[in-house]
Amino acid sequence: MLENKNTSLTPLSTIGEFPLIKHLTKKFSLDPSLDTECGIGDDSAVLSKREHPTLVSSDLLIENIHFDLSYVPLKHLGYKAIMVNLSDIFAMNGTPTQVLVNIAVSNRFTLEALEELYEGIALACKRYKVDLIGGDTSSATKGLTLSITVLGTAKKENIAYRKGAKKNDLLVVSGDIGAAYMGLQVLEREKEVFKVNPKSQPDLSPYTYCIERQLKPEARKDVIDLLEKLKIVPTSMIDISDGLSSECIHLCKSSKVGCRLYEEKIPMDPEMLRTCDELSIPNMTAAFQGGEDYELLFTINPSDYEKIKDNPLVSVIGHITDENEGYYWVTGLGQSIELEAQGWDALKK
Amino acid sequence: MLENKNTSLTPLSTIGEFPLIKHLTKKFSLDPSLDTECGIGDDSAVLSKREHPTLVSSDLLIENIHFDLSYVPLKHLGYKAIMVNLSDIFAMNGTPTQVLVNIAVSNRFTLEALEELYEGIALACKRYKVDLIGGDTSSATKGLTLSITVLGTAKKENIAYRKGAKKNDLLVVSGDIGAAYMGLQVLEREKEVFKVNPKSQPDLSPYTYCIERQLKPEARKDVIDLLEKLKIVPTSMIDISDGLSSECIHLCKSSKVGCRLYEEKIPMDPEMLRTCDELSIPNMTAAFQGGEDYELLFTINPSDYEKIKDNPLVSVIGHITDENEGYYWVTGLGQSIELEAQGWDALKK
Repeated sequence: MLENKNTSLTPLSTIGEFPLIKHLTKKFSLDPSLDTECGIGDDSAVLSKREHPTLVSSDLLIENIHFDLSYVPLKHLGYKAIMVNLSDIFAMNGTPTQVLVNIAVSNRFTLEALEELYEGIALACKRYKVDLIGGDTSSATKGLTLSITVLGTAKKENIAYRKGAKKNDLLVVSGDIGAAYMGLQVLEREKEVFKVNPKSQPDLSPYTYCIERQLKPEARKDVIDLLEKLKIVPTSMIDISDGLSSECIHLCKSSKVGCRLYEEKIPMDPEMLRTCDELSIPNMTAAFQGGEDYELLFTINPSDYEKIKDNPLVSVIGHITDENEGYYWVTGLGQSIELEAQGWDALKK
Repeated sequence: MLENKNTSLTPLSTIGEFPLIKHLTKKFSLDPSLDTECGIGDDSAVLSKREHPTLVSSDLLIENIHFDLSYVPLKHLGYKAIMVNLSDIFAMNGTPTQVLVNIAVSNRFTLEALEELYEGIALACKRYKVDLIGGDTSSATKGLTLSITVLGTAKKENIAYRKGAKKNDLLVVSGDIGAAYMGLQVLEREKEVFKVNPKSQPDLSPYTYCIERQLKPEARKDVIDLLEKLKIVPTSMIDISDGLSSECIHLCKSSKVGCRLYEEKIPMDPEMLRTCDELSIPNMTAAFQGGEDYELLFTINPSDYEKIKDNPLVSVIGHITDENEGYYWVTGLGQSIELEAQGWDALKK
């Protein structure tokens, strides 16, 4: 019945993740008697008639779609799974407080394997001061699936939605961009080498930073703390899970604005640049299309520029324009090139 | 690396779902500076230093573990997936308010298939007045996986934990028990018949009630509304997803009490009893070990008995004893038989 033999039916791979979510949820409306301030369409939902708004977000991590256990240690996977979720709360300028972990595993996994996974989860919870408060555990017919839900809180006036960017606001990004993607390229290359020659002993030391960015990212609590200290409330914010280009377009579309980014301002790590050279991947492909950096991309009012301009945690990479000016990046040679949202799409894997 | 070739490793199937969750989470403690009132171990977590406590629970539904699409229509699956989660909030004596739906699908599923699923989700959300506020959508290498998180709220003094049952409290169950299990048996039987003879046209009309209980259960909001109207706060409560016997033992263990149930008091539907006869399944096996009824099992102070005794929505089925008296049911012939927790275990599938 469900086999796609009827040619009038639509394969999901032709649609894309975001259009699909939009399509499937377009008939749902929010009940005005409930306390939902913001539902689908931002990093987290916001429930806000309560004393302090509650933020909530949920993410899937599926073996061989989101991660490859041939080079991802289970402890790192557990840690990263929590980071990915905490990042969604930070991207609202909130503080994560609790997580629920649902896990489904095939009989290929042992208790000891799950213990490793939970060690990573426990370490992440401890470091970021969040409570594990529930979840569900099940067998699966294939592989490992994690579904994590995170709750958090924020002062109402501090919440940074995707929709608040205004013309002339400055576009700011934390940390550096593209290294997680290059780490993935190195790991994939070594996996292929290993298939041909299982006895090879790869020297991964030249790629330490990129690999760590891929396997064990840190959610940017420090950036949220910095914003609080500097008394800056971003006018809009999003986390970079799917690539700078795609996230930038998300943020602009939500805010109904355009943007200009400057190539020379994009923060990139020297090791990442060297790895791009070695693997013949253009820097800007890694920076714009590579995902999983879990850095924060946000906009600030130009009047906040002085507070932030010399801070090593963040870089001003561009500014917001009118919507009809589109989404462009300006190369080192002064050319304007339209941004393309070719980021990660879990439905196209 | 992950293959279970090392014989000192522990296959998950030897452990069981609840011991596994307990084992994996035993090193996690709750951070006293956060607002977690109750974490793992009840139907929902409770976050409660907020003005009104927030309840939150999350459940997995995995194809060929929890459901079989050869006889479960996708719309019913969507509806049931929401019911299963709402039931966890009702089981805390709370009101569900929001859901997040994470969904992973293989390329066997089309857009139209997901639309059917979401129709069921939308119907459930509308009927039970909950907002869909988020979630994640991904491809999967196999099958359909749903991970649903539900949020709810309750007045602090009304929350019914599993741990509150006291000696001499009365054990009460809503609706009737065992029909969802018998519906599953009928559907499984017809599936086997269909394999042998795909042209057979089964007459399922004698099993309408049982099949509806299996495919389209309703969470017992009406029972929670009744308790409020009667001004009864249960001393403890749990929902029956894994079978009456297993849930009764959960509740008693959490409360550190024992119990006596009476066979003649267990509410069973005539169609369910007839189907048990036909399929040669003992009534009490279906009632005690069959799951997925999503009825509520709760305890009340004996002083509340008069308020509830003649209400058709609920049945008093036994009472709470001292812990050292164990967990027993009394047959129609007066024999006492120990309850066994042989309910559904998602890790043993």
